[in-house]
Order: sequence, then C-alpha cells, then structure tokens
Amino acid sequence: MGRLSTLSTRAPKELEKKDIKDKTGKMLERLNELQNVLFADSSQAILVILQGLDASGKDGAIRNVFGHLNPQGVMVASFKVPTDEEKKHDFLWRVHRHAPLTGMIQIFNRSHYEDVLVTRVHGHCDDATAHRRFRAINDFERLLTTHNNTHILKFYLHISREEQQERLNERLEDPTKHWKYSGKDFREANRWDQYMNMYEDVFEHCSEIPWILVPADQNWYKEYVIANALLEKLESLNLKYPDLDTSHQ
Amino acid sequence: MGRLSTLSTRAPKELEKKDIKDKTGKMLERLNELQNVLFADSSQAILVILQGLDASGKDGAIRNVFGHLNPQGVMVASFKVPTDEEKKHDFLWRVHRHAPLTGMIQIFNRSHYEDVLVTRVHGHCDDATAHRRFRAINDFERLLTTHNNTHILKFYLHISREEQQERLNERLEDPTKHWKYSGKDFREANRWDQYMNMYEDVFEHCSEIPWILVPADQNWYKEYVIANALLEKLESLNLKYPDLDTSHQ
Repeated sequence: MGRLSTLSTRAPKELEKKDIKDKTGKMLERLNELQNVLFADSSQAILVILQGLDASGKDGAIRNVFGHLNPQGVMVASFKVPTDEEKKHDFLWRVHRHAPLTGMIQIFNRSHYEDVLVTRVHGHCDDATAHRRFRAINDFERLLTTHNNTHILKFYLHISREEQQERLNERLEDPTKHWKYSGKDFREANRWDQYMNMYEDVFEHCSEIPWILVPADQNWYKEYVIANALLEKLESLNLKYPDLDTSHQ
Repeated sequence: MGRLSTLSTRAPKELEKKDIKDKTGKMLERLNELQNVLFADSSQAILVILQGLDASGKDGAIRNVFGHLNPQGVMVASFKVPTDEEKKHDFLWRVHRHAPLTGMIQIFNRSHYEDVLVTRVHGHCDDATAHRRFRAINDFERLLTTHNNTHILKFYLHISREEQQERLNERLEDPTKHWKYSGKDFREANRWDQYMNMYEDVFEHCSEIPWILVPADQNWYKEYVIANALLEKLESLNLKYPDLDTSHQ
C-alpha cells in the first residue's frame, strides 16, 4: 500500500459524522442478524486481526463494533508479551490455539504480526528471521483459510503521530484511563519511524490476504470502516439457516 | 428452595413489562460502566453459571444481558456432551480450564452441574457417585472463590412444562430455529419429573454458594432478574480504577 506517511489518517472531508454514525448503527443491526446465521450454520469462521500502534483504538473497536454481537459467537484473544511457556514454543503456537472454531468470530487484539514488529524494533528479530517468519505467517493464514473455511480480515489502524501523543497524554490525565498507561508508552512512541518501516515491510510481504487500512484518528470513521468490511464479508458468504435435523427422531 | 413445582415460573402479577424493560435497559448501561472498572482493576473475577432445561432461555440470556458488555471482558464456555479426551479426565477438568481470569466475566452455558443432572437421569451416575460429585463441586467452587477472588453467580432458569413444549414446537415450525432442534428434545422433555428431582437434589446439596431462581417463562422478566443480580454483585465490590503506574518511568 506504499508509504504510510502518504496515507490519510482521517475520514474523507465530504463525510458527515452524523450520517456515518447512523450508517454504522444500521450496519451493526444487520451484522447481528448475519452473525446469528453464521453461528447456526457453523460451517465457516471469521478471524479478525487488529493491528496498530499503542492508542490506535483497538480496544475501542472491539467494544464498539463487536460489542453489539452475541457474545456466544465472539471470542477475543489479546496477545501481549509472551509467557515463559509460550517462549518455549514456535511463535505461532500460542496463536494457533486461538484459531476460530467454525461458526465463530474470533478477534485477535494484536497477533502473530507483533513477532515481526515490536521484536524487530527492539532488535530481538533480525531481518533473516523476519523473512522466515513472513513466510510462516503466509503459510499459517493459508492453512486456516483452506482447511477450516476461515475468512481472515486484517485491519491496520492508522493514526497520526499527533493523535497518538494526544491519546497518551489523556491516559495520564484521565483517572479512568490511568490503567491503560504504561511508563514505556512514550518511549515506544518515540520509535515511530522504526514502527512505520516495519509495518511497511509487513504489508509488502504478508498481503496474500490483503490488509485493510483504517484511518483511525476519528473513532466514528474507524468503526464505520471496520463494520463495513465485516458486513461485506458476511453478506458475500450467502449464509443460510440449516434445515431441520431429523436424524434422531 | 423447596419443591420446584411450588415455585412460580412467571413474573409477579403487579409488574408491568414496559417498566421492567426500561429498568433493565438502565441497569445494562450501569453494568457496562462497572464491567470496565472490573476489567481495569483486574483483581477480581465473576463466574456466571447458567443452568436450566432445554429451551429455558440460556442462549437468549447470554445474548440479551451479556451482549451489552465489552466482549473483551466476557468469555462464554458452553458445555455439551464431553469429548473423548474430556471423558478421560475427572469431570471438573474441562470446567477448570475455563475458570475466569481476574478482571473477566466468564459465563458457563451449562456447567459441571450437568454431571449430576443429565447423567443421573440417564443412569450414568448412581446416587453414591452423585454425592461424591456434590462434595467435589462444593470444594471446586470454594477454590475459585477463596484462591482467585472469584464471585460465583448460579442461576437456575425455571420454566413451566407448558412453556417448554411451546418453545420446542417453535423450533420445529420456525425455519430460523430449526438449527436449535434435536430429535432428542421431546424425549428429554418427557423426563420432566426426573429432571425436577435431580435439580432439587442439587439445590439441597450444592448451595454453599446460593442458587438464584429465575422465573423464566417471560424473557423480559428473566433478563431483569439476571441483570439485577449481576449488578448488585458488581456494586457490592466497590470497584475503583487503579492509580497511575509509574514503575517504568
């Protein structure tokens, strides 16, 4: 998708916030219906991968888009610093465990991509290793797609440096956001250019399943783009409620 | 709680559906706020156990009460017929794996109680085994409570035989509900008295943590009772957002 610095982090100017929020609301209702059929049918799965820098709005996207669905059909896995046990396995082991069951929407809050992002920025993964991982990631995503009817939606939440600084400051100032703050946040934010380079490398090498760029400075637009992509995917599956099972009559 | 047949499956007559639905709506908003603090604070956990006969409305309760919360803080585990692997372990093994992490609300759609309910009705668990299991269940629930700050809410969804028959018929007639129907449903429903006896035995022996009886013939009242119990519990915890962590500054 080219240099990230050339891509807008904001909604197109002609869009009206109120219109878009109305549209999103309607889409969420329809998503709710389709999710029920996905769950009932139970032959296909959805995997949503959310990537983006600190404070790019991943948690809010989960809350405001997926929070309207039936929790019985949604699972969220958050990938943080690997545990001691996880470190003793290949980097995809902990991720594979959370691959979606058919019928489910599985959300990854961060993902296997951190193993070619934060690790590279901090020098724990050299270029040769990164390239071997790119290949393994493509193979893994193909496995889920081909062998378990999994539809993978990969979102990159694209915020501007200014917006990120503002949100990190909010974490310091707003007592209901203190828990989100880590003393490392500003240090990480200062590695902005390195993160951008590593993301660009990911997009170049891991786009067999395409990335969806989400301009994320405005939450209302971010939520719209994500809901819209999910809805288009679910509509395309032509899902139907299963027929009556009379096998145990 | 005495003989189930003497306990109402309906809302008290003086209650108005519209008022109660309004109240539930307000409670769900407040629950949403409190869940966020539970998650941020991350020192205590909630375990919601939903038990009830087929068609008593467990799925609907999950959708309509817990569907309003942040999916990042809610997990649902549904316990069905044990797999071959699960059968090779003690009956609490598969359940313990899904015990809630602190900060989370974990929902059990059916639970370890099936091992002293459906198994007894079908003669796979004799009385002596059932009594050993009652004790193990009490010990297990005490473990979660004492050693991981877990607050357990146990709901029994109490429907009438007439309402159950009506809902099972709906599954046959409504194409969007066919997927819920199993040819075994009516056979199981005919074991009504046995199920009632087994539930009464559970309430007699496993009430160190009390059961909450939910009159469940009307969904609006069922949802109100569950939301209300959950809200009372969360309010009682006096949850607060954590202070700023400056340890990595």
